[in-house]
This record gives sequence, C-alpha cells and structure tokens, in this order.
Amino acid sequence: MDAGLFSALFARGDVDAGDDAWLQAMLDAEAALARAVERAGLAPPGSGEAVTAVARSEIFDNRTLGEDAAATGNPVPALVRALTKLLADSEFAGAVHMGATSQDIIDTAAMLLARRAIDVILADLSAAAASCGARATEHARTVMSGRTLLQQAVPVTFGLVAAGWLTAVDEARLDLHRIRSTRLAVQFGGAAGTLASFGEAGPQVTALLGEELGLSVPVLPWHADRRRVVDLAATLAGTCAALSKIARDVTLLAQTEVAEVTSGRGGSSAMPHKQNPVAAVIILGCTKQAPGLLATLAAAAEQEHQRAAGAWHSEWQPLTHLLTLTASAASWSTDMLESLEIDPSRMRANLEATHGLPLAEHIASVLAPAIGPQAAHDLVAQASLQATSDKISLADALLSDETSAKALADAGINATLLHSHLEPESYLGATSEFIERALAASAVTEQALKG
Amino acid sequence: MDAGLFSALFARGDVDAGDDAWLQAMLDAEAALARAVERAGLAPPGSGEAVTAVARSEIFDNRTLGEDAAATGNPVPALVRALTKLLADSEFAGAVHMGATSQDIIDTAAMLLARRAIDVILADLSAAAASCGARATEHARTVMSGRTLLQQAVPVTFGLVAAGWLTAVDEARLDLHRIRSTRLAVQFGGAAGTLASFGEAGPQVTALLGEELGLSVPVLPWHADRRRVVDLAATLAGTCAALSKIARDVTLLAQTEVAEVTSGRGGSSAMPHKQNPVAAVIILGCTKQAPGLLATLAAAAEQEHQRAAGAWHSEWQPLTHLLTLTASAASWSTDMLESLEIDPSRMRANLEATHGLPLAEHIASVLAPAIGPQAAHDLVAQASLQATSDKISLADALLSDETSAKALADAGINATLLHSHLEPESYLGATSEFIERALAASAVTEQALKG
Amino acid sequence: MDAGLFSALFARGDVDAGDDAWLQAMLDAEAALARAVERAGLAPPGSGEAVTAVARSEIFDNRTLGEDAAATGNPVPALVRALTKLLADSEFAGAVHMGATSQDIIDTAAMLLARRAIDVILADLSAAAASCGARATEHARTVMSGRTLLQQAVPVTFGLVAAGWLTAVDEARLDLHRIRSTRLAVQFGGAAGTLASFGEAGPQVTALLGEELGLSVPVLPWHADRRRVVDLAATLAGTCAALSKIARDVTLLAQTEVAEVTSGRGGSSAMPHKQNPVAAVIILGCTKQAPGLLATLAAAAEQEHQRAAGAWHSEWQPLTHLLTLTASAASWSTDMLESLEIDPSRMRANLEATHGLPLAEHIASVLAPAIGPQAAHDLVAQASLQATSDKISLADALLSDETSAKALADAGINATLLHSHLEPESYLGATSEFIERALAASAVTEQALKG
Amino acid sequence: MDAGLFSALFARGDVDAGDDAWLQAMLDAEAALARAVERAGLAPPGSGEAVTAVARSEIFDNRTLGEDAAATGNPVPALVRALTKLLADSEFAGAVHMGATSQDIIDTAAMLLARRAIDVILADLSAAAASCGARATEHARTVMSGRTLLQQAVPVTFGLVAAGWLTAVDEARLDLHRIRSTRLAVQFGGAAGTLASFGEAGPQVTALLGEELGLSVPVLPWHADRRRVVDLAATLAGTCAALSKIARDVTLLAQTEVAEVTSGRGGSSAMPHKQNPVAAVIILGCTKQAPGLLATLAAAAEQEHQRAAGAWHSEWQPLTHLLTLTASAASWSTDMLESLEIDPSRMRANLEATHGLPLAEHIASVLAPAIGPQAAHDLVAQASLQATSDKISLADALLSDETSAKALADAGINATLLHSHLEPESYLGATSEFIERALAASAVTEQALKG
Repeated sequence: MDAGLFSALFARGDVDAGDDAWLQAMLDAEAALARAVERAGLAPPGSGEAVTAVARSEIFDNRTLGEDAAATGNPVPALVRALTKLLADSEFAGAVHMGATSQDIIDTAAMLLARRAIDVILADLSAAAASCGARATEHARTVMSGRTLLQQAVPVTFGLVAAGWLTAVDEARLDLHRIRSTRLAVQFGGAAGTLASFGEAGPQVTALLGEELGLSVPVLPWHADRRRVVDLAATLAGTCAALSKIARDVTLLAQTEVAEVTSGRGGSSAMPHKQNPVAAVIILGCTKQAPGLLATLAAAAEQEHQRAAGAWHSEWQPLTHLLTLTASAASWSTDMLESLEIDPSRMRANLEATHGLPLAEHIASVLAPAIGPQAAHDLVAQASLQATSDKISLADALLSDETSAKALADAGINATLLHSHLEPESYLGATSEFIERALAASAVTEQALKG
Repeated sequence: MDAGLFSALFARGDVDAGDDAWLQAMLDAEAALARAVERAGLAPPGSGEAVTAVARSEIFDNRTLGEDAAATGNPVPALVRALTKLLADSEFAGAVHMGATSQDIIDTAAMLLARRAIDVILADLSAAAASCGARATEHARTVMSGRTLLQQAVPVTFGLVAAGWLTAVDEARLDLHRIRSTRLAVQFGGAAGTLASFGEAGPQVTALLGEELGLSVPVLPWHADRRRVVDLAATLAGTCAALSKIARDVTLLAQTEVAEVTSGRGGSSAMPHKQNPVAAVIILGCTKQAPGLLATLAAAAEQEHQRAAGAWHSEWQPLTHLLTLTASAASWSTDMLESLEIDPSRMRANLEATHGLPLAEHIASVLAPAIGPQAAHDLVAQASLQATSDKISLADALLSDETSAKALADAGINATLLHSHLEPESYLGATSEFIERALAASAVTEQALKG
Repeated sequence: MDAGLFSALFARGDVDAGDDAWLQAMLDAEAALARAVERAGLAPPGSGEAVTAVARSEIFDNRTLGEDAAATGNPVPALVRALTKLLADSEFAGAVHMGATSQDIIDTAAMLLARRAIDVILADLSAAAASCGARATEHARTVMSGRTLLQQAVPVTFGLVAAGWLTAVDEARLDLHRIRSTRLAVQFGGAAGTLASFGEAGPQVTALLGEELGLSVPVLPWHADRRRVVDLAATLAGTCAALSKIARDVTLLAQTEVAEVTSGRGGSSAMPHKQNPVAAVIILGCTKQAPGLLATLAAAAEQEHQRAAGAWHSEWQPLTHLLTLTASAASWSTDMLESLEIDPSRMRANLEATHGLPLAEHIASVLAPAIGPQAAHDLVAQASLQATSDKISLADALLSDETSAKALADAGINATLLHSHLEPESYLGATSEFIERALAASAVTEQALKG
Repeated sequence: MDAGLFSALFARGDVDAGDDAWLQAMLDAEAALARAVERAGLAPPGSGEAVTAVARSEIFDNRTLGEDAAATGNPVPALVRALTKLLADSEFAGAVHMGATSQDIIDTAAMLLARRAIDVILADLSAAAASCGARATEHARTVMSGRTLLQQAVPVTFGLVAAGWLTAVDEARLDLHRIRSTRLAVQFGGAAGTLASFGEAGPQVTALLGEELGLSVPVLPWHADRRRVVDLAATLAGTCAALSKIARDVTLLAQTEVAEVTSGRGGSSAMPHKQNPVAAVIILGCTKQAPGLLATLAAAAEQEHQRAAGAWHSEWQPLTHLLTLTASAASWSTDMLESLEIDPSRMRANLEATHGLPLAEHIASVLAPAIGPQAAHDLVAQASLQATSDKISLADALLSDETSAKALADAGINATLLHSHLEPESYLGATSEFIERALAASAVTEQALKG
C-alpha cells in the first residue's frame, strides 16, 4: 500500500494489499493459468512464458483498468483485454484467461494475497511469541496483583500473565497455519462452475493451476460456497482477538496510577509530559475494526446461485482491510512487547497497598477446614470490610476481632503463620507449572510451524 | 481518493475521503482555528490569514506525515510541526494549533469530510428521488405482481413500487439533512476538554471556530461522547438500507425469468450474451458493507475517560469508508434508476401466467360476506391448489367445483362478474392514493431540503 | 419476561418483551383493527368491543400458537384462527383481522412494544440524568486528573465528568423522544401493501387504526421499507453507547489502584474481600451486545419486493433483545449512579502523585509567550522526563535545569508563581462554564420531554 | 427452551439452551468438580456422589437464583449457596465449588451446552447431507440454467447444484467436529487463574475434571483468553453460512416465475393461493442473525486482566442464541431438503426460453480457434443482442448475419453442428466429475465423523 497519512498506523507490517498488490496477484493468477493450459496441451508451447512475461503490474495502469471496471462490475475484463492486447500479434493470445471467468481470477488473487499476508503475520507473531516467552521465563516469580472486574483479586506473577499471552498467540499461529495449509484453495470454475469450455479437461487444468500457485485444489469450484473466506476471516479476527487482549492489558498496566509496565513513549501535541503507550493503542485501533469486518464477510456468504449479485463484490474490501489490519496489529505487537518495561517493585507495591486484602481468599481457605468454607468466607469478608473502612491491615482486622481471632486460634494459626499466609508467594498455586506448560506447548507450536 | 482498481465501484460519486481530503480537512480546521484565535484577540492580527495561506494540502507530504504519525499515534503532531515550521520566522507561528489537541483537529476534520460527503449524497439522492417520482407517475397504473416471500401475491402497480422507493429515499434525505444541520459539530476541548490553556476565553474561541467552519457549537466538547459519530454512521447506514432495498428489487425484477425491468448492460469476461445489472449489483456491493462498519462505530463509543486508548482510533477508517460507500451507492443509484427500462407487457404476462391465482384473495373477499371469511379463504385455497395441480385457471377451478360454484351463486357472482373480479385492475385498493401521497410528501421533502 | 436465571441481569427494568408481551401486543393490534373497521362502517356495531373483549393474552396458549407458527412461518395465522373461533357464533367474527396480513400485526405489535420500552427507558434515564446533574453541581470544583489514552493528562473536575455523562444521557433521551414521536408508525397494508380488500377505504381504516393505537400514520405502508426499524435500533444502540461510556468510566475510576469512586459492593464466590462494581459491569454486559444486534437489523433492511423471505423474520429477535438490553442497561444505570460514592481526597492525591506532571501543559503555556510554543513544549517535555526519571517534582526539575530556569526568569515566573501555576485549580479553563451549560441544556431537555 | 410463540421457528431442533439447560450444565460442572476433588483425595469419600445426587436442576428455582444474581453479577454464588445448603448437615458441603470461581462454572457449562448443541446439529446436518447427496446422484444429468448475478449464464445440472450444497454442508460438519474435539475445554482456574487454593494439586484436579466431563484440558485456564469462544462462534456462523446459501437458492428457484423447485407449502393469513417456502424462509430468518452475534463474541475477546468487567458477561446471551439458531437452521434444513420437489421439465423450459443464449459461450469457444477468442466473444455478443432485440434464436441470429455465418463456415460449423452445440448437454464440462468428487469426499467425511 502506498505510504499515506494513516498507513504507518493501520497498514504497518510488510503486507501489501493495496491496488498494486491486487493487480499483481490477479496477473499472477492469469500467468499461472496460461502455464497450466500450456502444460495441459491446450495452448501452444511458450504460452505460459509469454503471458508470464507481460504479467507485471507496473506495465498496467490501475486508473484505466479501474475506470473500465465500472462497465462490468469488476476489473478483470479490462485486464484481460489489456493482457491480450500485449500479445495480440502472437500465437499466445488465446492462452490468456482461457476457460476462466472474472471470479476465478479475483478469488484466486485473494487467496494469494491472503497467503502472503499470513506469512508476514506469522513472522511477526513468532517474534511476539518469543517476547512473551522470554517475559514468562524472566518474570515467572515476579508477583503482582491478579485483577478481576478491574478489582485486585489474588496474586499472580507477571510471568503467568505473559504465559497467558503466549498461549493465545501460539493458538492464533496454529490456526493461521491451519488455514494457510488447508483452506487457501485455487478458484477455477469458468462461467458457472462447470469448466464447460474445457470439455472434460477442466479438472486437469485446475490441478495444474493449483500446482503452479502452490494452492490447494478444492473438491469443487467454490465460487458460490464462501466458507473459505469466512474461515479465513474468522482466523484473522481470532488473531486480532488474541492481540487485543494483550494490548488491553498493557494499556491498563501502564496507567499512571498502576504503572507496572511502560510501553513506548508517544508524545502529545498538547501535553509535554505525556508518554503514551502508542503501540498498544494502535493495536486496539486495528483490532476493534475486526469484528465488524468479520460480520460483513460472514453475512456475505449467503450467495445466490452460481455467482452472487452484490454479496461477492462486498467481500473484496473487508477482506483486504482485515488482512491489512491484522498484519498491522501483529507488527505493532512485536514493538509493544519488545519495548515493554516491567517494574517488579511497583507490582509488589500495588499488591501490598491494600494491606493483605488480595490474600483474603488464602486466609479463608486455611480457616475453612476448621470452621467450614462458607463461614470462613463470610468471616474473612467481614474482616476485609473492617480493614477497608478502618484503613488497617487485614491481619490486624482479623486479630482484633474476637470471633475471627478465635477462629484463627481454632485453626492453629498464630500471628506469625498468619503473616506468612499473607505473603503473595505463599498463594500462587499452580503458577509455576502453568508457566512451564505454556513454554513447553510453545516449543511444540514452534516446531509444528517449522515442519 | 486517487482513482484505483476498485474506486470506480466503491468510491464513486464526487466524494473524496482519501488521504488528501483528510489532510486538507485537518488543515481547514487548523486554519479556521488560527482565524478564530485572531478574532478572539489571542493572536496577532494577520495570524488567521497567514496560517490559512499555508494550509494547503499540496504543500505537505502525506508520506512523511504518515511516517511521523507512528511516533504519536496520529498524524496531527507532525502536521502541526510542519505548519509551524512554514511560519517559523513570523510572529504568526504561535497561532498554529493554539489551545488544541490532536483530537480537536481530527474530529473536526471528520465533521468537515462528513458534511462534504452528505452534500454530494444529497445531490445524488435528489436525482434518484426525481427518477423514482417520474416512474411512480408514469407507471401509476402499470399492473404487475406483488410478491411476498418471493412468491406472487396480489397485484400492485410498478408506480406503487417506485413510490415506495421514493418514500424511502426521501426519508433518508430528511435524515441526512437533520444530521447535517444538528449533529455535525465542531470539536474543541484542548488536552482534556477544559480548554484550560485559554483560561476563560475557551468557549468564545469555540464559538468563533464554529462560525468559521459553519459547524454547530456543542454544549460541551464531545471528545469522549461519541454519539455524534454513531448518529452520523446510523444515518449513512440508513441511507444504504434504503438503496439496498431498491437495488435488491431491481436485481430480482431483472432476472432472466422475470424480465420486468432491465438496468444496465454489463458484459461478462466469459459469457458473450450476459447483460448484467451492474449498477444494482455494485450498489449491493457497497451497502452490504455498511452494517459491519456501523457496528464498529457503535462499539467504539465505549470510550475511556477524556480520550480513549484505541476506540477513538478505530473510528477513522470505518467512518471514512462508510462515507465513501454511501456516496458510491447513491451515485450508482442515479445511474441504475435513470437507465431502468420497464416492460409493462411482461409485467402483465407474469401476472397472468398463473391464470388468476394472484387474485385469489379478491375472490375470497367477495365470497366472504356470503359464506364468512374463513370459509371463503379455505374454499379459494382449495380451488387454487386444484388450479395449480390441474393446470387450469382459477376461474375454471372455481366454476367446475360444485361447492364453490354454489358459493359463487349464493354470493351473486356469475361467470362474467367472476372474470371481472379476476382483472388485476379491479383489485388495487389504495394504490392510486398511496402513489399520490408519496408524491405529495416528496414535494414537501424537496421544499424542506431547499429551505 | 418470566423471571429466569439471567433476567435480573439482562432483562431488568420494567420492560417486558417476552412471549406474553408480544402476544398481548399482537392482540392489541387486532383489537384496534376491529375497532377501526367498525368505526369505518365496515363491520357491525359492537365488533370492536367484542374483539377487544377476547383480545387478552391470558386466554391464549403460547405453546399451541407457537407450534402452529411452524406451518406458516409466523404465529399470526394461528392467532387469527383462535381469535375468530372465540367469536365463531357471533356476527363479529368477520371483523377479526379484516384486510390485514400477518406482517401488519407483527410490525404494529413491535411498534407497541417499542413504545412501552421507550417509556420505561426514558423514566430510568430521567433518574440517571438527575443523578448526573446532582454530581455535576456538587463536584463542580472537585479536582481530579483528566486522563487520555489511560495516562494522566491535565486536571478536570469530577463535576465536568458528570456533566459530560449528563449531556450524553440528555441527547440519548431527546433522540428516543424523537423516535417515539415520529418514527413509531402503524403498519397496515394488507397482502401486498395496497389494502386491496378495502377498495378505496383502506387509508381511512389506517388513519383510524393509528388513532386507536396512538401511533403515527405513515405516508405508505412500510412493510418493505425497514428504515423505521433501523432508526429505532440505532437510537437504542446510541442510548447504549451513552451508558457504556459512563459504565466504562466508573469501572476505571473504581479500580483498586485508582479508587476515586466506589459503586456497589458485589461479592465474589471465591474472594471474600471483593467489592465488585456489579452495576457498571452488567451495564457493559448489556451494551456490548447492542452493536451486533444493530448490524443485524441494518443488514435486514435489504428486503425483497413486498415482503422479504427471511430478512423480515430475522428482525424479531434482535429487536426484542435490543429493547430489553437497553432497558436493562438504563435501569442498572440508575442504580450505578445513585450508589456512586466519590472520594475527592483520593482524586486530589492521584493528581498530586506525579508531582506536577499533569500541569506540564500549563507551564508550557505560560512560557510560550516568552520563548515560543514549540520551544516551551519541548523544554517542559524535557523537564517532565527528568522529573520522572529522577523522581523529583516538575517544579524542581524546571528550577534545577539552567535552560528552563532561565526561560522561567525570562517569562517573569518566580518559584512562588511557578507553584501557583502548578495548582490544579489554576488550570481548569472553561470547566465551570461547561458545567453550567450542561445543566442549562439539561433543564431545556427535561422541559422538552415533558412538553 | 420452553415452547413459546417463536420457538418452533428459531429454537427448533433438539437443542435446549434455555434457563433449565444452563442451570443443569452448571450443576453438571459443580458435580463433576466434586467428583474430581474426591478422586484427588481433597474431599471425603462420597463427596462426588453426594453433590451429584443433588445437582438436579428441578430442585432449584431459577427465579430465586436469578434474583440473587443481581447482587454478584452472575448466578453462580447463589447456586453454590443453595447447593451447599442442601448438604449442610453432611461432611460433603466442603466439596461444593472447591477451589472454583464463578467463571469456572459458567464457562465450563457453556462448553457442555455447546457440545450437546453440536451433537444435535451434526445429526441434522448428516440428514441434510444425505438429502443433498441423493439429489446430486438423482439429478446428475438434469440440466438447468446456471445463473450469475441473477442472470442466466451457461447450463449446469441440478445434481451439480446439490453437490455444491453437499460439499458446503460436509465442510461445515468437519469444522464442527474439529471444534468439538479440540476446542471445547474445561475451564478451571480459581479466583485468578492460579488454582491457588489447591496449592500444587490444581492441575491434577483440572485433569480429573476434564476426564469427568469428557472435555479437553487446556494448556492454561482460558478465563481471559476467549479465542475458544470465538472459534466456536465462527464455526457456528460458518455452518449458518453454508445453510444460508442453500436456503437462498431454494427461495430463488421456488419463485413463481422460476418454479424449478417447490419446498413446503406454507399458507398465508391473507392470500388463499400462497404456498410459501416456509422452511427456507425461516432458515434465512435464523442465519441472518448469526453474523451480528459472531461480531459481538469476537469483540468481547478484548478482556481485561484475569476477568473482564462486562465483556465476559456480554458473551452468555449471544453464544446461547447462536447455538440455538444454528441448531434451528440445521433442523429446518432437513425439512427443506427432504420436502424439496424438483421439476426437471421446468428447468429445461427455463433454459430454452431464451432460445440458445445460455450456450453463447459455447459457440464463442468453438469459433475461437478459427477467429481468435476476443473476436469470437464479440461476434457472439453481437448476435446475442440481435437475438434478444429481434426475439429470434441465437442460431438464427448467427446464421442470418453475414460475418458470423462466414465465421461459422470458416470454423467448419454447419447448421446441424451449430444446433448440437446449442444443446445444454453438449456444454456441461466437468459437471459429472465434480459431482462424483463431491460424493466421494462426502463418503470420506461421513467416515471421519464416525471415527
């Protein structure tokens, strides 16, 4: 895409799905078709090479092709005319667009664009996963507050948070890989999906076309069965979903009042002191556009007969946009994660600021065997309220109340033991094991993606 | 927008919401601000003129501005720097961007783009309404089959169909006019919506800014209250809704087997005989993208504090796209409607092809007083089934069955009267009055839009 | 709606759009039609009263009607049969459903449900607006940090925040009122929108039907023009948008680390100390569902001919759901706002925690006249970085640096003046005026809604 | 779901995702948890059995649980209290909800509901696939018009159309199977995903819980990683996409003017003659709701920290609704396909009504070797226009024009050969092979689903 006012934000990454890229992908499809029909013996030797030689986007004019598209509803007929004209005096002209319809070229081109985009996205996600993995390892024991409904809950570690990000990114990568391997298929059906003009040779040409382009060969031409597009879009939106969660966490952890991480130092035109988490913000600016685009593509799958009147046409822009935005979000995510600075002391300070409340559940759990879980829950809830209103520690609230002091005594918990139960490190459960599992699963993922 | 491969399809119409248009709109906002602060006595005389003189998009480089946008998350800081630099040696530099924040410029620019787009859309819709009105008048008595659930129902006239289209377009026009007049407001709040750097002079500057730009002045800066954007988007999507219904009807009426209208003669790259309804198809290609974009913008309204981290940024592309697509659909609709050819004889032929079935309800209604509505309904339903299975006319089915023949006799309906009740013209109800009402309402609309 | 497992969350408020409410609304439409046809002289005197007398949902069985709906695709034909049967031995049976089609009844019933829902929503929003107004007044001078991109920006007051909420709620109220007054129209067109079975009397019956139900009379039957549904849905989604912003702010301000407000005290099944902002959370649980439902309804407007095959049917559930969710969000918002506790001292403490940084823009603005805006911005930005890294106050950073100390001196700002410029109260700009404007506008809104 | 006014339409099929089903699924999760903790040696022997014995929805009151849900934001805490109370006097009370948080129960219950729904959907789709397969076989050679952009294109056979439907249904089945096998995982993380209250025993309990419920065990608790929900929703929406295409085709083929199929015979309350394709219409009424619900669920994946404030809550209704609607569409599709009547003679008649035009491409293709593809295309296009305007056959248009007559002669095509090239059967290309491939692939699918 040409560099423009917003492209560094929303069209970042090495994906190009602009006009030139579309044009080249359509030309790649036409050239591959010419090679396929030559290989099938349906066009003179040299046809494939001849068409391939002129199938270069820079010798065509988007503007003219675009204007002519208005007459037919898509740019392919004009492109075919232009391509044929370049070979007008040769025996190879007949090999151009042989047996194809416009949809064959546009759908196949979309698959090629999707494949290139997925490759770029996978590369960026690999870097993002590596960052997450490194953080998960490094901060496996860096305690911080878990937070539910935006309230402090029980302790976690930042390593576990990063492990959660890692697992989401890894699953997104596997899903993109699945789609790339199994759902990106050549489209080739001719006028109405029968490849009629080839007689019985159609399937052979399709197979060769798939070979030329490295795309799957579908059971049937999929011109009117749009589930491939929906599957692709869903996987892109699922990737955005994974990245949106990470970016949301980063913006929240980077809040001035939380300050557990910093990520980037974006300035403000008005405020000299601002250090905005630009990467995280722009990731969200990208990912929040994905669900609407996915909905458009899912709705467009209700297509009439052998080629839809409008629904097909409504796919081109949202799919292009979704590929570009996902790639942009993935690219920004590598920046965000690599530049992420963690402040373990602030994490601990925030956790301790409420004087033991995040460990309330732990105290309840150690009281439960003595007085029953519901009573333990209620008693600690009462002490928590007391601690909050009197601005004292949970320990003091528990020890100063007669009932709870007795319960502690009954449970064999003296003040020293109580305070040790109030240490975050004492209440991390399976945190370490979960981190190890995420890292191990990621190694398997990495292997699977290489294989 | 630069002419490109798909722009004749999806960015048609005289709307430009590409990078250059965005840049110019931002510059227009900056220039108006400089004039406003000068008028408020906060900048040296001549500041407004000086800034306005350099606020021309062609002297800035989108590519550079765009690259710098990555550092701050939006292109305004770089633009402000470039603008300031152009006035660096003058006393006017201080008037640039005075008291503003990036969001003030981007939101105000979006309103300016929206206004220009609405003006273009309204012009196209005025032509579309005129076409519909002319068809409603001309074909007020051209009978055709009404169709419900894609099955022939009772007769209507093509004039009534066109009157329905007219009313929908008119209501869309009124709604666009409402939004243009009442919801497109200047955005001006400074860093966090207090206009703090102006002391108490902020509201005066806002008022002057509104005056300079011809935009409404809101009660409060609306930086974090995105209902204006949602309202605008909803009205655009509502316009698309009106046009989508017309285009859907045209594609259906133009089906080879129906052939009651033709609209355009788009060719096919594969099939020499095709005459595709390109305009209608591309309208649907545009309008089917609107609901997803509207959903994105409605979801984006959940914005944090004084400026959202991502949700705001996620608005720019869908809003631009929705303006462009709506304008494109409106532009195509004038083509579609002006080129629409009506075939009254085919309309009548289709209506008569089922030998009276579309008038079954009429017969039931004239039998009802004699035998009750339910019995009349059931008896005619039975005769309709008979007519279909025996491939005879409804009249023959009714007359040849003893029970129904008796019922007709009881109701005083002889064969002549029966046949006259089976004439489509005999069963048009309020069709004429409805057409007249639609035309009268349209005249009022036209007046209101001029006023 | 019957009380169920989730209805206290998502179907709160006094709106009932469950099966019984739908059934009663359909019966209300049928009864009004009987009264209208009687008044038009088309049915025997007493017909209206007779039909009205039996048009009570409790004497019908949803289950049976629902089962029969499978045969026809909607529940009206079975309802009409049941209603007719109740009057079978009377002369009034013929007045049931006279001239109507199923869509007339369902669409009109939907309008009745919408009106009832809007009335309930408006009552809740009136209470919400009152709460916001009271907070805006009470906390007009309660300084707190403005926050952009989730980073502290310049100071605002909580009163201004509440004024922003107020304006959004007020504009939502006005829009709901507009839709209620102008867009809720009776649907009456008969089989294909011609009211054919009435001959020329159709429009008179429509007018009387509108009168009976207190609904607008449209220019044309709107069976195939769904912009009214889209407009209604957009306004409901716009209301959700306004409420979502407030709830998002509340969840953020209530974060443990921010703690500037508390709202509700929801418990946790696991954690005894949790005090969750349940109302705000459930509001978001409701409002986040609105954009998708709006998209469905906007997409459904592409309807074929005189009645759509599926698109119409796809409206019933999303519209019902959107009415219910909006009402639920509005109801929860009154709770959330009334229970909201503000902590002014924490607000000030958070603002002061960064030792002057939120006032950086103020310092830049007072330096600008002496050294130019860009230099002032850059110099203060540098000092802000220094203050952050050295953990000193912005004042100290400015005074200890030679360049900035000189600039301050040049601008005539001594240490005392510098500190006074660093007081939040010194940099509130138009805050007071904005609050007053919001309150004044709200009074006008209140008046308009009463009128 | 209780039978209601609309449930035969939108909640058909054997799926129950109403309140009682949700309650039972939550109880199933609680009971399985009790059995798991007992097996892990963390609760007294008999605990699992005791909790399981009382975990029956019929002994709880949805209304009361629902009311209490308002205090905590979800119904689980009240359910846990009620469940504990039932075991209050026993040693087993402590085994209830041990180590769990509300989200563990709700998410796991959602997975159980999803699994049951998928099983029902797969059974219906198996029947639908069988119907499609039978039609593909039976009508492999039943020629009909292919239609692109709703215009007649080249011939296809109905068997090929049915084969296309089959492939789409089969791919939907495989995708549902994939999700069921790999993405429906137990959710178990405790308060913040660490299973802290179990010390190091958490993962063992999770494994046992997965075993008890037959659900996958995830790498990590997925409380804040919602890609499983998005994947599930995408697959359901993809299933709806496949069904929507079939239903759209059926409504179009069943149009009065096309009449190539009939499907169902739904009556009208107004029109005695109507035979509406109710099943196809209601399928579309269901499937058109899917994209908006999918968008809501994809957007909800942006979740904060360890449990989201609102986004999580916003999932419950759309997911329930999407499961129900997909199941309903699948159930209706078996009806639609089984009741589908094909009219081969009408198919041929429609194809022949335009006197050879659908074979225009064939003629161009046989002329191409002699005169080049572009010239052949243009010449046949000209003849097609002539044929249309003069209402003559394409053969006559070609033979009566000097240029084209010469071209035919040059290509060695005499009148007899021309007419044979105009036979639909002569231009079906790979139709037979495609049908065979679809049937073979379906057999493989069937096997894979059984395995």
